[in-house]
Amino acid sequence: MSKNQLLVLKFGGTSVGDVARIQHAASIAAREAAAGHRVAVVVSAMSGQTNQLLSWVKEIDPLYDAAEHDTVVSTGEQVTIGLFALALQKQGYKSRSYCGWQVPIHTDATHGKARITGIDTTILTQSLSEGVIPVIAGFQGVTDAGRITTIGRGGSDTAAVAIAAALNADRCDIYTDVDGVYTTDPRIVPKAKRMDKISFEEMLELASLGAKVLQTRSVELAMKERVRVRVVSTFKDGGGTTVVPEEEIVEQQVVSGIAYSRDEAKITLFSIDDKPGVSASIFGPLAKAAINVDMIVQSIAGDSNKTDMTFTIPRSELPLARKILEEQSAAIGYKNLHIDEVVAKISVVGLGMRSHPGTAQIMFQTLADKGINIKVISTSEIKISVLIDEAYTELALRALHTAYDLDAA
Amino acid sequence: MSKNQLLVLKFGGTSVGDVARIQHAASIAAREAAAGHRVAVVVSAMSGQTNQLLSWVKEIDPLYDAAEHDTVVSTGEQVTIGLFALALQKQGYKSRSYCGWQVPIHTDATHGKARITGIDTTILTQSLSEGVIPVIAGFQGVTDAGRITTIGRGGSDTAAVAIAAALNADRCDIYTDVDGVYTTDPRIVPKAKRMDKISFEEMLELASLGAKVLQTRSVELAMKERVRVRVVSTFKDGGGTTVVPEEEIVEQQVVSGIAYSRDEAKITLFSIDDKPGVSASIFGPLAKAAINVDMIVQSIAGDSNKTDMTFTIPRSELPLARKILEEQSAAIGYKNLHIDEVVAKISVVGLGMRSHPGTAQIMFQTLADKGINIKVISTSEIKISVLIDEAYTELALRALHTAYDLDAA
Repeated sequence: MSKNQLLVLKFGGTSVGDVARIQHAASIAAREAAAGHRVAVVVSAMSGQTNQLLSWVKEIDPLYDAAEHDTVVSTGEQVTIGLFALALQKQGYKSRSYCGWQVPIHTDATHGKARITGIDTTILTQSLSEGVIPVIAGFQGVTDAGRITTIGRGGSDTAAVAIAAALNADRCDIYTDVDGVYTTDPRIVPKAKRMDKISFEEMLELASLGAKVLQTRSVELAMKERVRVRVVSTFKDGGGTTVVPEEEIVEQQVVSGIAYSRDEAKITLFSIDDKPGVSASIFGPLAKAAINVDMIVQSIAGDSNKTDMTFTIPRSELPLARKILEEQSAAIGYKNLHIDEVVAKISVVGLGMRSHPGTAQIMFQTLADKGINIKVISTSEIKISVLIDEAYTELALRALHTAYDLDAA
Repeated sequence: MSKNQLLVLKFGGTSVGDVARIQHAASIAAREAAAGHRVAVVVSAMSGQTNQLLSWVKEIDPLYDAAEHDTVVSTGEQVTIGLFALALQKQGYKSRSYCGWQVPIHTDATHGKARITGIDTTILTQSLSEGVIPVIAGFQGVTDAGRITTIGRGGSDTAAVAIAAALNADRCDIYTDVDGVYTTDPRIVPKAKRMDKISFEEMLELASLGAKVLQTRSVELAMKERVRVRVVSTFKDGGGTTVVPEEEIVEQQVVSGIAYSRDEAKITLFSIDDKPGVSASIFGPLAKAAINVDMIVQSIAGDSNKTDMTFTIPRSELPLARKILEEQSAAIGYKNLHIDEVVAKISVVGLGMRSHPGTAQIMFQTLADKGINIKVISTSEIKISVLIDEAYTELALRALHTAYDLDAA
């Protein structure tokens, strides 16, 4: 790797979970600095701290003022940046902490889930040029009125990518408790392989499909800003997966990875009048309640002027969705409602799919050979997803991993 | 009490020690607001939090960078201000939190024990005029370079008084776990009485003499800025002692209060050459080591060109003081060194002393009547202190309390 790159290193809550882990994470940053790179660090709160702070807030007022929530919860990260900078100093490096308002990281005033509107890089650039490692609170900012905001839980990857983009960094390393992105879950398929590189597009599909390595928003931002992102383990040397623009993937796999999600539920509304506006009458109220509908299939029912509608939603939203649909039953005009909770979504993702027309057929045939019934199918340019009985999840993953030639080294 | 006063209410760590106590303290502030006053609140960190934060800092580096220490430790108060503002909102009052940098409270850059250089009252005054109760982090500020400072442990009373002075408040109420200042320690003398009023001058003598109710610096500042300070209990309604300018004390007591301290140690150097510069040779090295020497008595030794020197220091400094004096033994030229650790200092304080010449004699006679030997005497304009055997502390306090007519109501 070439010398004197500008690296942004991001450590999540588990990676800075206690003093010993902070010291270890600092040694990783120190190692990169010793290798001749300019290093900026972005950290989260020590794991557990945010929950403690949030529980105090909720104890006082479950319907809390989001601005005061942010004042309280942002302290978690403020503790980590100070301790991390101290640990770097103790290891012989110049370092200094930056709260969001000190950078400043400008955000809108949507407290609790603010959006970054701009990052002033003056002070960070100066710090880097003086050989001082800046340690930045990753998921907070400040409004134009001078109030503290938080970017929202799980927004720290995104903040790290935004800081990397603003600094025009050569790479953004996301240190976490896995050592990269695998062709599928290695706990289920022992032959799963770590990918050295993956394209933004594939990573986006995998991230949103339940391969919980990187937050979706962070991948979107990295793609937009063309920031190379590397997922790497805090606790194990080596490895890592770099997320890069598509043109850097020389040999495109037909299928790069197989994701699964058990967080789905399937709803079918039987025997609906097949008339204009019926879809809107179903999905309008669900959208209004912020329920994310995923796969949708409409099919002709036995009765010719009737139709059946099947769709999936996050399993956690099931009680709310059922309530809404039952309230809307007259407006929609369905005969009955069927819910299937024991389903899993299996998705195969790959850039090469675009030039290999038979990819879907391999999936259908493989599942058929194992006697697995496909309940719903949905596809995009580089992804095929199917809904199956949850009990077959492991079997399906292993069979597909073999069928798409991912077992080999 | 007249309506629409401007009150600064300060709650220490014990008063905001958990969520329930924060809610209770908020109800006190709410009560004052409901009574028609404009209220600003100053709070400390929840008790225990600062120690936890400090222990993390020291675990990483016992010789920590004070600037990063401040970044970490200041979060304790930031949590309290947010929670306190939420509690006030929940009780139906408009409120909002202010970190030191948000006020801003300007300080010098002496991290860990910064001094306030100025308080910008613009935003606080606006908040008050809009009926919003500002809740201010009490012991932190910001440097001209934008870094967070802390004013030092135990500096929160002082910060509250400084904020009250800047806002030109009618009163600064210090809420604590005692309900006022007593004529002496009521745990030792059950007949001790709570004083409704005490002068700044008397409070200063009592505060520095071990009546641990108010921090000495805060009383000095209140006297200088003429801020009325009231000490009052968080946990018990009513009571309180107001510290006021001397001219407001209509009936001056000869003796207002009797303080004691068991934190003293007495050192005597015997048979020193009685020549110019000998005091400097003793107290110079002690001052250099920041050892606070209190009472000093010099007396002629039996040998006519020799002298004995007796003085007191804080008992905790004894090992260091002994080491220094032994190292300096040749330079000082003393024959031997005697240490007495089991001593107590008893002090009577009162403005009326200035016009009542017999006050000291009452003290000496009372102690003599009880067979208590006086080891050292020191006096100031409104104070007489004596050093006695520690075993007689309670007896001395009770006898003096009676002798100075403090037992009566």
